[in-house]
Amino acid sequence: MQKAIVLLSGGIDSCVALSCALSQKRECLALSFDYGQRHSIELESAKKIASHCGTSHTIIRIDDALFANSSSSLLNSKMSALSSTYVPSRNLLFFAHAACFAEANNASEIYFGANSDDYENYPDCRPEFIEAFERAISNGSEHRVKIVTPLIKLTKEQIGSLGRELNSPLDLTWSCYDPQKKNTPCERCLACLLRSKAL
Amino acid sequence: MQKAIVLLSGGIDSCVALSCALSQKRECLALSFDYGQRHSIELESAKKIASHCGTSHTIIRIDDALFANSSSSLLNSKMSALSSTYVPSRNLLFFAHAACFAEANNASEIYFGANSDDYENYPDCRPEFIEAFERAISNGSEHRVKIVTPLIKLTKEQIGSLGRELNSPLDLTWSCYDPQKKNTPCERCLACLLRSKAL
Repeated sequence: MQKAIVLLSGGIDSCVALSCALSQKRECLALSFDYGQRHSIELESAKKIASHCGTSHTIIRIDDALFANSSSSLLNSKMSALSSTYVPSRNLLFFAHAACFAEANNASEIYFGANSDDYENYPDCRPEFIEAFERAISNGSEHRVKIVTPLIKLTKEQIGSLGRELNSPLDLTWSCYDPQKKNTPCERCLACLLRSKAL
Repeated sequence: MQKAIVLLSGGIDSCVALSCALSQKRECLALSFDYGQRHSIELESAKKIASHCGTSHTIIRIDDALFANSSSSLLNSKMSALSSTYVPSRNLLFFAHAACFAEANNASEIYFGANSDDYENYPDCRPEFIEAFERAISNGSEHRVKIVTPLIKLTKEQIGSLGRELNSPLDLTWSCYDPQKKNTPCERCLACLLRSKAL
């Protein structure tokens, strides 16, 4: 059985990406990151999703020192909610961890839920970035790892449809970026707006 | 003053790379990694080198879960000293951290002490890998970061000479991979053999 690392944030996209990997009969190793995000409640969702799907789940802790000087509103409570939700090179960091984890666990794929509605806001979700990173992996290691992006051409609406088709546990996902919200999302942040398109 | 991240392991190469950056009048932010390496004594050397050179120094802790299943002899005491010292995609991980740190701290360069004597044993020291990674950074972020490899064409002997020329604190460096050694190196491991060529 082919092994795949699945980047699982706890949101809709990664949840559906996991369902895609499972539907392709992969043995999935879900990977989440505790990078000091103020909406760390998403990690609870990631746990529930992995458990529901019966896959192994590892949460990697990113050292706080790395983003200590970041101005992202996802990390720094002194930043207004209107400031950028972009975290410096976050996906670069996540992919690098995933590549190490894949190599250490003899997995040949990394599933990643990037999609067409992400491009605009996040350069590190764009196909050019993903291709360049894949080339870096293959130049830096004898181990072959492919990055699989089953949602890359889909809109949020289409991801919602695909999730329902695959019986993805969408009700367990969490999207809201507002760190104050623990049970009901704010319905106003970018993540909530994109979520409402999917559901 | 232009800011540069310097990957500082505590060995000769990274020490000389730091001296190169300082000689180019960079404001240096030295970055080391605690990734569960059994020869963690190198981090003590990194601290001393940074302090001697008067640069800021950050040690990033890599979550143990990442390499839990790795068979590298640098990480796993169950492996014989003869097994591979290659750590899965280690430089990919270090570069990704350095790119995040550069972006969060507004640095425009990453100094890295890869050199011609490393290629053979470590694919993630080769120029093709470094170029591919640079492309991944530039595709994934608006922030421009260049990877600077001042030693890339030098042999160990030439690095030793350059270090002496730049008054690099070579006496503070540590190379030995043997985790039992705390004061005197083993003089037998690959790292010791390469070191003896430099000094």
